Amino acid sequence: MLYFNGNSLGALPKTAATDIGRVVQEEWGGGLVESWLDADWFFLARKAGDAIAPLIGASAGEVVCADSTSVNLFKLAVSLLRQSKDRRTVVTERGNFPTDVYILEGLVQLFGERFDLVVAEPETIVGAIDGDTALVLLTHVNFRTGAAHDLAAITAHCNAHGVPVIWDLSHSAGAVPLALNDWGVEYAVGCTYKFLNGGPGAPAYIYVAQHVIATHEPVVTGWFSHANQFGFEDRYRPTDGIEKCLVGTPPILSLRAVMHGIACFDGLEMSDVAQKSWALSELLIDLADDRLAHHRFTVASPREPEERGSQVSFRHPEAYAVSKALRAAGVVADFRSPDILRFGITPLYMRHVDIWDAVDALAGIMAGESWVAHRTETPDAVT
Amino acid sequence: MLYFNGNSLGALPKTAATDIGRVVQEEWGGGLVESWLDADWFFLARKAGDAIAPLIGASAGEVVCADSTSVNLFKLAVSLLRQSKDRRTVVTERGNFPTDVYILEGLVQLFGERFDLVVAEPETIVGAIDGDTALVLLTHVNFRTGAAHDLAAITAHCNAHGVPVIWDLSHSAGAVPLALNDWGVEYAVGCTYKFLNGGPGAPAYIYVAQHVIATHEPVVTGWFSHANQFGFEDRYRPTDGIEKCLVGTPPILSLRAVMHGIACFDGLEMSDVAQKSWALSELLIDLADDRLAHHRFTVASPREPEERGSQVSFRHPEAYAVSKALRAAGVVADFRSPDILRFGITPLYMRHVDIWDAVDALAGIMAGESWVAHRTETPDAVT
Repeated sequence: MLYFNGNSLGALPKTAATDIGRVVQEEWGGGLVESWLDADWFFLARKAGDAIAPLIGASAGEVVCADSTSVNLFKLAVSLLRQSKDRRTVVTERGNFPTDVYILEGLVQLFGERFDLVVAEPETIVGAIDGDTALVLLTHVNFRTGAAHDLAAITAHCNAHGVPVIWDLSHSAGAVPLALNDWGVEYAVGCTYKFLNGGPGAPAYIYVAQHVIATHEPVVTGWFSHANQFGFEDRYRPTDGIEKCLVGTPPILSLRAVMHGIACFDGLEMSDVAQKSWALSELLIDLADDRLAHHRFTVASPREPEERGSQVSFRHPEAYAVSKALRAAGVVADFRSPDILRFGITPLYMRHVDIWDAVDALAGIMAGESWVAHRTETPDAVT
Repeated sequence: MLYFNGNSLGALPKTAATDIGRVVQEEWGGGLVESWLDADWFFLARKAGDAIAPLIGASAGEVVCADSTSVNLFKLAVSLLRQSKDRRTVVTERGNFPTDVYILEGLVQLFGERFDLVVAEPETIVGAIDGDTALVLLTHVNFRTGAAHDLAAITAHCNAHGVPVIWDLSHSAGAVPLALNDWGVEYAVGCTYKFLNGGPGAPAYIYVAQHVIATHEPVVTGWFSHANQFGFEDRYRPTDGIEKCLVGTPPILSLRAVMHGIACFDGLEMSDVAQKSWALSELLIDLADDRLAHHRFTVASPREPEERGSQVSFRHPEAYAVSKALRAAGVVADFRSPDILRFGITPLYMRHVDIWDAVDALAGIMAGESWVAHRTETPDAVT
């Protein structure tokens, strides 16, 4: 199988397969409740966060791993909107990953008439952010096209206007170099089951920069964020640290898999990982220009490597049928409505020859028109 | 080991150990992204909910399994408070599980001056609920004492006053008969890692009665609750069903373990499970009266079986040191601050002889004063 869906669900790390069985059998089955301390379950959300931190240019103590990306977005956004004074707009972009926009819609309704949701075009986003902006929520790399925002520049613009901005790093962390601390990023969330190989539905992470942790006030105030959790105090008191972004008990089996996904990056520089991503992506674009353009494929991703995440998307009027024909030929790539064929580039485990072979397969499908047979299939749910 | 902590973390079901390894190796490693459909991952939150439903007296389509108990409490409570008109009090009880109260504190702050949090004494809770009550949140079985509320009667009182009530079933589901539909319960949440044996930090469940699902409006509006999730529509539209209580991608490895935990109840009647729980608890109380009362143990749980969940708690001035001495003797029971020694009774896998043996061990510790050596240890984090 040629797997171009590692940006949807990353591959299984070899070490995870054996270790999860051990966690189940020995830590749960044998250690039972005592594994909360003996196997460090109790600190796992923080340990996973500390392990993710260097991959996104953050420091230990700025990241925890828990809940889903959607819930983490809600947690950050509800706190920032509650603390907002007088400002009126909540800004995001058209074409953002849907859950990000949905979460904002829910919040704007929750706060009644207080905020207006502005869904700007991606290219005009900076113009929509000004002194009346209460919150900005953007995804670094677009899930359909792979287009990457200039995260540093937009953050600088937001910071200059005193506007809190939350970055969703789901489609960039683990494949694109990130320097959150250096870029002045204060709030971010991201997914661990894509480029970070954390496993299906693995807990997401949440980042709050050190200098704003003290003033960050959680709204979803669960017991895992309490300063004295097992004192079972009557009143809520948040802890001082990044654990104030936790809520309830984290799912340990899934969280352990995340540790293995992140461990795949041990000893690697993210700049080297990104260089390989660019080389693979450039090869795919070059080969497509050469062999697929005359079959009505157009490159939907930016052609400049620094404007792109770790994926190459093409538009084709029959993208769905083509994706199915590709699958039948052993090439797994994603269809994204309405006309996108998306190739995730996973530099940790993808080879140059995989790109050649995939283009060979695709060129063959187009030449032989074997995709036509898949035209009648109904698009199904794929994450 | 004599394990009286199954009400904190349930034991490992035999089938889970082998199956989770297979899920990791074959479904994640082999099937990759296609397992979302091929291995039914996509429907697992609902499947787990449907499996939990008969254990709590609910119907298929009224329960989903996702997120933590704390997050689920927040999700229900924020929706109910937003829809509330003019009513002013949010009622819970002193001694409720801390996260339940913390979540309400966060919400009352979020809504500004609109609501007052009333923390009533458990025995006067009904008197605190009237036509000015916007929301009631109660835990069926108290985590410290095991005292059970008359869930049916309190629900009837709330319904008569048009007051929405959320029940937290974490300490009752899987050990105590529940008939949510028959009792007119509209909203509930609960934990799967205690009596339901779902594994450490396993996703919690959320119940909304069929007749109120249509009018229930989610506030934490993630993509898993969208009517057309993979249409990637620009605007949020909740689905019609119980899936409107989902938010983000659920943690599949942990969720699969939940399926095995629930499967332990296949072919059992909850009334039979409860009968065994009562028999074991009565034996423990009788033996304690006989052999431990003169060592300053007092029964902290109600003595009437129908007023009690599936645990027996004792008060003792040296409860912490005694719990440590018990542990050294191979008996795992929980200390709960400040003076509670808690024996969880798990009818699925506990035998009468275990009760005898535990009391033997405890009587020996008290007679020989071996607990004194544990006096200096510091209480540690136990969930």
